[in-house]
Amino acid sequence: MKQDYDLIIIGGGPAGISAGIYAARQRLKTLLITKSFGGQMTRKAVEIENYPGFKKISGLDLIKKFVSHLKSQKIEISQDSVAKVEKKGKGFSILTKKKKRYISKAVIVASGADPRLLEVPGEKKFIGKGVSYCVTCDGPMYTGKEVVVVGGGNAGFEAAISLSSYAKKIYILEFGDKVKADVDNQLRIKETGNIEVITSAALKKIQGQAFVESIVYQDRKSKKLNTLRVKGVFVEIGSQPATFFVKGLVEFNEKDEIVVDAKTSQTKTAGLFSAGDVGDVAFKQIVIAAGQGAKAALSVDKYLQKHGKV
Amino acid sequence: MKQDYDLIIIGGGPAGISAGIYAARQRLKTLLITKSFGGQMTRKAVEIENYPGFKKISGLDLIKKFVSHLKSQKIEISQDSVAKVEKKGKGFSILTKKKKRYISKAVIVASGADPRLLEVPGEKKFIGKGVSYCVTCDGPMYTGKEVVVVGGGNAGFEAAISLSSYAKKIYILEFGDKVKADVDNQLRIKETGNIEVITSAALKKIQGQAFVESIVYQDRKSKKLNTLRVKGVFVEIGSQPATFFVKGLVEFNEKDEIVVDAKTSQTKTAGLFSAGDVGDVAFKQIVIAAGQGAKAALSVDKYLQKHGKV
Repeated sequence: MKQDYDLIIIGGGPAGISAGIYAARQRLKTLLITKSFGGQMTRKAVEIENYPGFKKISGLDLIKKFVSHLKSQKIEISQDSVAKVEKKGKGFSILTKKKKRYISKAVIVASGADPRLLEVPGEKKFIGKGVSYCVTCDGPMYTGKEVVVVGGGNAGFEAAISLSSYAKKIYILEFGDKVKADVDNQLRIKETGNIEVITSAALKKIQGQAFVESIVYQDRKSKKLNTLRVKGVFVEIGSQPATFFVKGLVEFNEKDEIVVDAKTSQTKTAGLFSAGDVGDVAFKQIVIAAGQGAKAALSVDKYLQKHGKV
Repeated sequence: MKQDYDLIIIGGGPAGISAGIYAARQRLKTLLITKSFGGQMTRKAVEIENYPGFKKISGLDLIKKFVSHLKSQKIEISQDSVAKVEKKGKGFSILTKKKKRYISKAVIVASGADPRLLEVPGEKKFIGKGVSYCVTCDGPMYTGKEVVVVGGGNAGFEAAISLSSYAKKIYILEFGDKVKADVDNQLRIKETGNIEVITSAALKKIQGQAFVESIVYQDRKSKKLNTLRVKGVFVEIGSQPATFFVKGLVEFNEKDEIVVDAKTSQTKTAGLFSAGDVGDVAFKQIVIAAGQGAKAALSVDKYLQKHGKV
């Protein structure tokens, strides 16, 4: 069987791009498949202030710099989406939505994850204008302001605790009649003194002129509609990793994230590596994903030193 | 006992700086202690081409961007060196060479590692002009050229295999009468066809005008001096992590590197975290170290959410 590539990288976010730069520099015959570049950076309508080396840069500008860096290297790029990855001998066969089939000795899955959306009126309109999916990225902008965190699980509680250093007041909105966060997190929010939990609350809409000014939720018991005046809406209702095309091929955790060795970016399937938010990583950040992409490419190089290149 | 800081970061390389940026953004009361900024980047006389976002940038310019990013944040910086870290209640007491004592709830060790030097005439003169301590960084510059790798252990063999994609011919120089690389690596270098191993070889000097042109080594058996015409000298005789000041406080591996959980940057000592080349990391790269620094700071934030801030 002809092997087309040493390595196929699936995904064009920070992890995939960094993996591509490193793989090309290691002289691996590499194909990167992505529908578009930037991953979650494309949704960052606010400035990025935590990628070391750039004090403040727009998501779009950082993507441009990443892509221009990638394209300065010897690497093939296909604008396509992956439909299925299968084991083929010692390598992998990859089928795309455009019905192309590629054969590769190794694969890096860097297809990212999408935060689950609220699906309420106003959400899309105010992304980057009050609606955020990342407290670590955007929290500092809400210093002294009132905000709401949607989601009463551990992620929501931890987001609220983190926000309590900046925001004047934080509401946590939970749909169910009980919060799902563990007791430890429940005790901690009491210590902050500026977090209020509202249960049985169904978010109905997000309102404002240019920026978020308030939200409306329904008390699911009394059926009454209530308004909260807040400048920020932090969405913490989980995320959806793009892993469907490797289902059955590699181990997932309970969130359908790929189980990955953070030291080497290896998965438990030989020849298959993972980088960025598609894996069971502890923190989802651009520089962390880029670091994992570099690791994954260097691990692939080591793997191919043993198993041979095309 | 008064706690001066939430967090003390030891080291001012990519890992320490990235940790500092993230810690400040998490509103941790943070002190960063370093004698100078840049870590191993200061020794990179050649351009850096693999930090995603910068196609090509000098080590000095990248350091300037990192430091300027760090200093735009609310963080204290002390130009000093750490002499000793000790456990103090639930936190840590840190003594510096300038005889200052600081108390902190958490510590990130990001003090880096120094490659072991050859200590032969010409080495220092030709750093960045033919002498390199990083094949991943500098290998591509030696495409079509003859080079020597000093060190016949696994690191030296893997460096040579990696170089075999670029260089025309690679010599491996080993001081002992046998190589220390494992059999697998020994077999692999045979397959490349352009690597030659020379044992019982004591490197005597590195020569050239502006750039490296040759090296002289002594055959330790015949006592004869031999010259190899090479453009590059890759030094692979190990590295020395800067960990002496936490000896006994945290688990080391056999290389005196700190054993660290790559997923969270936690060590086995509660409250003590590690990032960058001082840890038992698989690959030593700027973007990987920066990613780990970010992880370490976010892990500290989580740790202090549980244990309280100052």
